[in-house]
Amino acid sequence: MDSIEKLKNIFRDFPAVGPRTAGRFVYYLIKQPKEKISELVSALQELSSKIKLCSLCYQPFEPLDSAQNEFCTICQNPSRNKTLLCVVEKEADLQIIENTKKYNGLYFILGGVASMMREEDADRLRLEQLKKRASSGSFAEIIIALNPTPEGRATLVLTEKAIKGVLPGAKITHLAQGIPVGGELEYADEETLESAFEGRK
Amino acid sequence: MDSIEKLKNIFRDFPAVGPRTAGRFVYYLIKQPKEKISELVSALQELSSKIKLCSLCYQPFEPLDSAQNEFCTICQNPSRNKTLLCVVEKEADLQIIENTKKYNGLYFILGGVASMMREEDADRLRLEQLKKRASSGSFAEIIIALNPTPEGRATLVLTEKAIKGVLPGAKITHLAQGIPVGGELEYADEETLESAFEGRK
Repeated sequence: MDSIEKLKNIFRDFPAVGPRTAGRFVYYLIKQPKEKISELVSALQELSSKIKLCSLCYQPFEPLDSAQNEFCTICQNPSRNKTLLCVVEKEADLQIIENTKKYNGLYFILGGVASMMREEDADRLRLEQLKKRASSGSFAEIIIALNPTPEGRATLVLTEKAIKGVLPGAKITHLAQGIPVGGELEYADEETLESAFEGRK
Repeated sequence: MDSIEKLKNIFRDFPAVGPRTAGRFVYYLIKQPKEKISELVSALQELSSKIKLCSLCYQPFEPLDSAQNEFCTICQNPSRNKTLLCVVEKEADLQIIENTKKYNGLYFILGGVASMMREEDADRLRLEQLKKRASSGSFAEIIIALNPTPEGRATLVLTEKAIKGVLPGAKITHLAQGIPVGGELEYADEETLESAFEGRK
């Protein structure tokens, strides 16, 4: 197998990439100057050698020095509110919440969602690690910020059960559901509209 | 900028990849075992060091040995029909025609399409190289296999002009347009239906 085919196969394993897109990526790279490929190669090597998972929230991060290589900058930041824990599915969800600059608490990345149909999915979630984290901190509120999808809801049930097992009196909250800001009633689906009514204030 | 951000920026330059997808690619790679990243790194290094462009058709290829490193396997193959030249926009189009196993002639990759609006696009096409190639061979027919899009049609005009300039008597053909096999009349757009009528046989 030549390097074009090898690279196509590797890109095909990327999320949401099919054979056609994988091919386009390879031909795009062939057209780039060699320095561009060297940049990609060194970024990948750095990623592989430097990135660690924060041992509190499981966010991947690049330690600034070897002395502080266990906790990410959010978990290390003394000005964050340490009584709030926000449980998210994945890294990108954490990032999007951070971008709003409206949340100042801590995070926990669950690492996926569980499908109702396949019990083995639940084993891949960091539920045991979440129990440990929830009981080790001094959290007044745990916000479960999962997607309002069937998988997100199934995971919510598992997550709540895990937290209640270790923090029976904890305040557990969810994100509000409703019409997106800038959205129109006319285009909202029935379930969203129902949630918006139920959550009216 | 840490390696996560660096890599996100590089992936954002990939075709049809936005900031969200770039992030998903990076987090996908972080979850992979280190060997998977090493595989990607060596495939990229191989691509960068070994791939050449065929000096006849401009297809990227990996030379099997240093003695034959100028022409791709198609252009080198003595059993291909050397009187047929098929002009395509890009590598993927060549590949999809090869997959049909119904075409046994040679190819020429134009390297893009020209927009009607921006004249500078035409400069990026390999029109001069095509002229040279067309006049150097002994082609009885040149098949212009460009997409039936506005850009494809604009490029067709430029390509025909270039070929006629060097091979005034050449037979120039285009791919047939019509209802896709397995498609239904009911769902065909008007232009396709019109072309199907015009091309009836």
